[in-house]
Amino acid sequence: MLYIIGLGLGDAEDITLRGLNAVKKCHKVYIESYTSLLSFGLSSDGLSTLEELYGRPVILADREMVEERADDILSEACESDVGFLVVGDPFGATTHTDLVVRAKKLGVEVKVVHNASVMNAVGVCGLQLYRYGETVSIPFFTETWRPDSFYEKIRRNRQLGLHTLCLLDIRVKEPSLESLCRGRKRYEPPKYMTINTAIEQLLEVEQISGESAYNEDSMCVGFARLGSEDQKLVAGSMRELLAVDFGPPLHCLVIVGKTHPLEDEMLDFYTIKTEALEPKEKCTT
Amino acid sequence: MLYIIGLGLGDAEDITLRGLNAVKKCHKVYIESYTSLLSFGLSSDGLSTLEELYGRPVILADREMVEERADDILSEACESDVGFLVVGDPFGATTHTDLVVRAKKLGVEVKVVHNASVMNAVGVCGLQLYRYGETVSIPFFTETWRPDSFYEKIRRNRQLGLHTLCLLDIRVKEPSLESLCRGRKRYEPPKYMTINTAIEQLLEVEQISGESAYNEDSMCVGFARLGSEDQKLVAGSMRELLAVDFGPPLHCLVIVGKTHPLEDEMLDFYTIKTEALEPKEKCTT
Repeated sequence: MLYIIGLGLGDAEDITLRGLNAVKKCHKVYIESYTSLLSFGLSSDGLSTLEELYGRPVILADREMVEERADDILSEACESDVGFLVVGDPFGATTHTDLVVRAKKLGVEVKVVHNASVMNAVGVCGLQLYRYGETVSIPFFTETWRPDSFYEKIRRNRQLGLHTLCLLDIRVKEPSLESLCRGRKRYEPPKYMTINTAIEQLLEVEQISGESAYNEDSMCVGFARLGSEDQKLVAGSMRELLAVDFGPPLHCLVIVGKTHPLEDEMLDFYTIKTEALEPKEKCTT
Repeated sequence: MLYIIGLGLGDAEDITLRGLNAVKKCHKVYIESYTSLLSFGLSSDGLSTLEELYGRPVILADREMVEERADDILSEACESDVGFLVVGDPFGATTHTDLVVRAKKLGVEVKVVHNASVMNAVGVCGLQLYRYGETVSIPFFTETWRPDSFYEKIRRNRQLGLHTLCLLDIRVKEPSLESLCRGRKRYEPPKYMTINTAIEQLLEVEQISGESAYNEDSMCVGFARLGSEDQKLVAGSMRELLAVDFGPPLHCLVIVGKTHPLEDEMLDFYTIKTEALEPKEKCTT
C-alpha cells in the first residue's frame, strides 16, 4: 500500500490523526523535498522533529529521486506499507498525480490522506473561494525568458469580477547552467519569489501589454507563510504591497476581483491604514 | 480566544494535531451542525465519539444558534478559550467569515486551524486544481423556483477549457412553509442533492437555454463522501452518471474541461468501462 499523506501548511503539528496513524504503520517513509520544505521549517533539525513525532526514520526524496527511483519506491509499496509525505494536500498546488498513475498501473493500492493546501487556506482573508477564477503561476523572469501567459488569465478573471490566486515560483535544487555545461551537476541555491518581485513582474507585463488588466491601484492580498503561527496577511494596492516586507518564504498573492460587503469587511482587517488608528480595546463585549 | 477549527472531510480522525491540541485547551466547544454533519457520521453517537476523543463535551450549534447567539459565544471567547468546530476547512465551501468579522469587531482574538475541504480534495480525481474556473452551486429546483445562474458560469468555464466544481444543495433544518404560516417552527427533514438530481437539473437548463454549454455526452466526475473511507468516484458522461447509484451523501460533481494527457490517464482509473476488462494483477513490479 502506498499512502500519500498531506502534511498541511504550518509545521509538524498540522498532520491529521489519520495521517499520523498511517505513517506509524509504514515500513518506509519518504518526504518530498522539492516543493516547500523550507516553509515547513524543515532544516535537518525539522526532519528529526518529524522523526521523533512519527517514531521512525524519514527519507528525504528530492525531485531527482522521485523521478528516477519511483519504480523502486513503488516496488517497496508492493510488499509493505510505504508512506509518501507531501507538504499541503497531495493534490494541492503541486501535482503528485504522476506517482499515483504509476502506482495504479503497477497494481499498487494507493490511499490518500488529505490536508489543507494553499488553494483553500487563502480563504482565511475572507475572499470567498467560489469567487476565484483560474489560478495562475508567476515564474521568475530572466534576461531572456519572460513568459507572461498569466496575464491573459488574470485579465479574464478580472473581467468576470473574479479573484485570482497567483502561485509564486520556487526554485529548489535547480542544476546551474554552468554545471550542466561541464557535465557535473551542481545546484543553484534555492530561490523563492517574494510578493514584491511578483508585483514588479506583473506591472512590467501590464506596461508592455497595455490591456488594463490591472494597475498599481488594483487591490491585492499578500500572504506570507500561510497557515504557520507567524503568517502575515496584508491587503492593499499593488503599489502599497510593493513597500511591505513580508519576511521569509513562502509567499503567495491574490488579486482581488469584485467584492461583496462581507468580503470587504473582512479585508478591512488586513488593509494597510494610512492614518493612525485608535487603539482597539480588547474584548469589548 | 476563539479557535475556528477545520475537522476535514472524513471522520473524527481527520482533525489535525494542532486542532486537537486547541480543542483540548478550550473551556467550551461548539460544533456547527448546519452544513454537513450527516456526511461526517455525526449522529448523536458520532458526537459522543468526538467527545471521547477531545475529552470534553461538544455543543451542537445549529444555524439558528450561531446566528442568534453569536454574541454569547463571542463573549465567552472573550473570557476564555472557545472552540468552534467546522466540517472541512473553516473557509471552505461554507463561509464562517461572518463569525470572524463579528469576533474581530469585538476585539476577540481569532485563530484558524486549517484542514482539507471539498475545494481542494476534489484534486484526488487527477484534474489539476489550477485548471478550475469559478465554482458553482446547484440549488434544489421547486415547482416555482428554478434558478439557473450556474448555467452561464459553466458555459464560460467550458469555453475557456476549465473544469467546473458544482457544489450540490444541502437543506438541513429548513422551517417548513406550513409551519412558518402557522407561526410555529417545524422543520423539513434534511435533504441532500444527489449527483443524479444535479445532472437532471443541469440537462433541463441546457435544454431551455440551448447555448450548448454541455450535453449528455459531456464528461463529468461524480464524488460521493469525498475524503471518507468509503468514498466513491466515478468518471463518465452525464448520461452514464445518471445511471450510477452513488449511495449516501454528500455528493458533488465536476464537469470536466479540456484535459492534459496526465489528467486523462488518471481519470481513466475512474471511468465507467463498457467492456469487460482483464482482471488487473496485483503488484506486478
